[in-house]
Amino acid sequence: MFYLIGLGLGDASDITVKGLEVVRRAKRVYLEAYTSILTVGKEALESFYGREVILADRDMVEQSSDDLMADAEENDVAFLVVGDPLGATTHTDLILRAVEKGLEYCVIHNASIMNAIGCCGLQLYNYGETISIVFWEKDWKPESFYDKILVNRERGMHTLCLLDIKMKEQTIENLMKGRPIYEPPRFLSASQACQQLLDIVNRRDDDKKTHSDLTPTTVCVAVARVGASDQKIAVATLEEMCTVDMGNPLHSLVIPGHMHPLEVQMLKLFAVSDHVRNILEATEER
Amino acid sequence: MFYLIGLGLGDASDITVKGLEVVRRAKRVYLEAYTSILTVGKEALESFYGREVILADRDMVEQSSDDLMADAEENDVAFLVVGDPLGATTHTDLILRAVEKGLEYCVIHNASIMNAIGCCGLQLYNYGETISIVFWEKDWKPESFYDKILVNRERGMHTLCLLDIKMKEQTIENLMKGRPIYEPPRFLSASQACQQLLDIVNRRDDDKKTHSDLTPTTVCVAVARVGASDQKIAVATLEEMCTVDMGNPLHSLVIPGHMHPLEVQMLKLFAVSDHVRNILEATEER
Repeated sequence: MFYLIGLGLGDASDITVKGLEVVRRAKRVYLEAYTSILTVGKEALESFYGREVILADRDMVEQSSDDLMADAEENDVAFLVVGDPLGATTHTDLILRAVEKGLEYCVIHNASIMNAIGCCGLQLYNYGETISIVFWEKDWKPESFYDKILVNRERGMHTLCLLDIKMKEQTIENLMKGRPIYEPPRFLSASQACQQLLDIVNRRDDDKKTHSDLTPTTVCVAVARVGASDQKIAVATLEEMCTVDMGNPLHSLVIPGHMHPLEVQMLKLFAVSDHVRNILEATEER
Repeated sequence: MFYLIGLGLGDASDITVKGLEVVRRAKRVYLEAYTSILTVGKEALESFYGREVILADRDMVEQSSDDLMADAEENDVAFLVVGDPLGATTHTDLILRAVEKGLEYCVIHNASIMNAIGCCGLQLYNYGETISIVFWEKDWKPESFYDKILVNRERGMHTLCLLDIKMKEQTIENLMKGRPIYEPPRFLSASQACQQLLDIVNRRDDDKKTHSDLTPTTVCVAVARVGASDQKIAVATLEEMCTVDMGNPLHSLVIPGHMHPLEVQMLKLFAVSDHVRNILEATEER
């Protein structure tokens, strides 16, 4: 059996009991190491599981699935994914390849940021489309994610913004020379993401602004290391959030739409300033 | 410490290791028993945890939170919720009450249908607003959920439809006479939900139909008992789904929007007929 097992979001003990049983008895255990990270590394997982774990990078998963799934007809092979196993397209593709090989598969679900974002107090069923905010480069500053936020806000919906992760990147020079030298991983922080949003807000013509447009005083929610013991949630205006230090990765951001009084009350628990607390209180009175 | 602990979706072993540790050491453990159910009951949980679990119904949670949280300053009290603890508004409210009492709280996340629906192969970030389909009554047949599906489809987004649960309902007669007699729980099935959708499709004026409207041949996805060993996924046309038996609760439904070829391939794995398989293949060629 080929198992796809979610690790949840915090540390090693966020795996489910069902998942841990499979990990302990499986012949081989792979850890997907390119779409997300836990707050602990491979070594912590190995010591918690009491067994060896094989790191699987993108090349291995996308190009060597024969090796990955070898002898999974007779043996259990486990493929560990941070969060829920079916958050990213690559993993659906693994299922299709397993089925093509005639293998049985089983998914063991877990929390992912898509539902654990409930921790900030904004209700899950009030979210619209989830978006990704990418690292801006010198000559590439896409704004399409901003327009999706507006579409959600137009309908009163909150927007979960997943923030860019760059793992195993190569410089153009190393890529062209075929040198397998990789840059250190980079994680877009909530404050950087807010700075990019604020740049868009400032760049767009004031005349064209609609009621769903962001402003420097729009309330934002940043979360960091959700599920870990040092989880952090901060509520600030867009402008304030540009200077809030959320600490180590991973970060995510939420741009609220219309808020229910209970949602406003929850956000107030995490307000970083009187300024944003006053804005939230004014919302409650409307 | 007041702990809100997600149980995930399948059976007793879907709790996380972190959650189980708290359950085993807590002074009291409550099981929220009115917004969702696992495929196993309280007794199975008690035997898995090796301890007593107290059932908490809506009255108890909404009206007796003082008892619920009594002595949680000095002791650990655990409140178990099927899925993720923050899927429903009631639980956010519990957090606010805990904070008001000056208690510390901790959320231990787990899978919920909001992310485990990834099991059908439609990508989570392609979903729009989640909707609820309620039981139609003789004189009450709301259609607002249908319009929300259309708004999502207009933008190419999939729609997760949560299906109604009626726990501890009273007949009008028993309610008026103040008799604490409750009807057996009812769970809206995927086929019933599809029948209601089909009724709306048939009732609406053909002239007014837009490209995002459903038709009897619209592809639908039904899931049942996600995460359990007898999980079932079925892909059928809306008309076909009205007669598909998904077995025991809980069921959910997805109405796809625009599909990526990889998503179509996944859905084909669960096709119940050549008819719907042909429709999916025609989608692939477009």
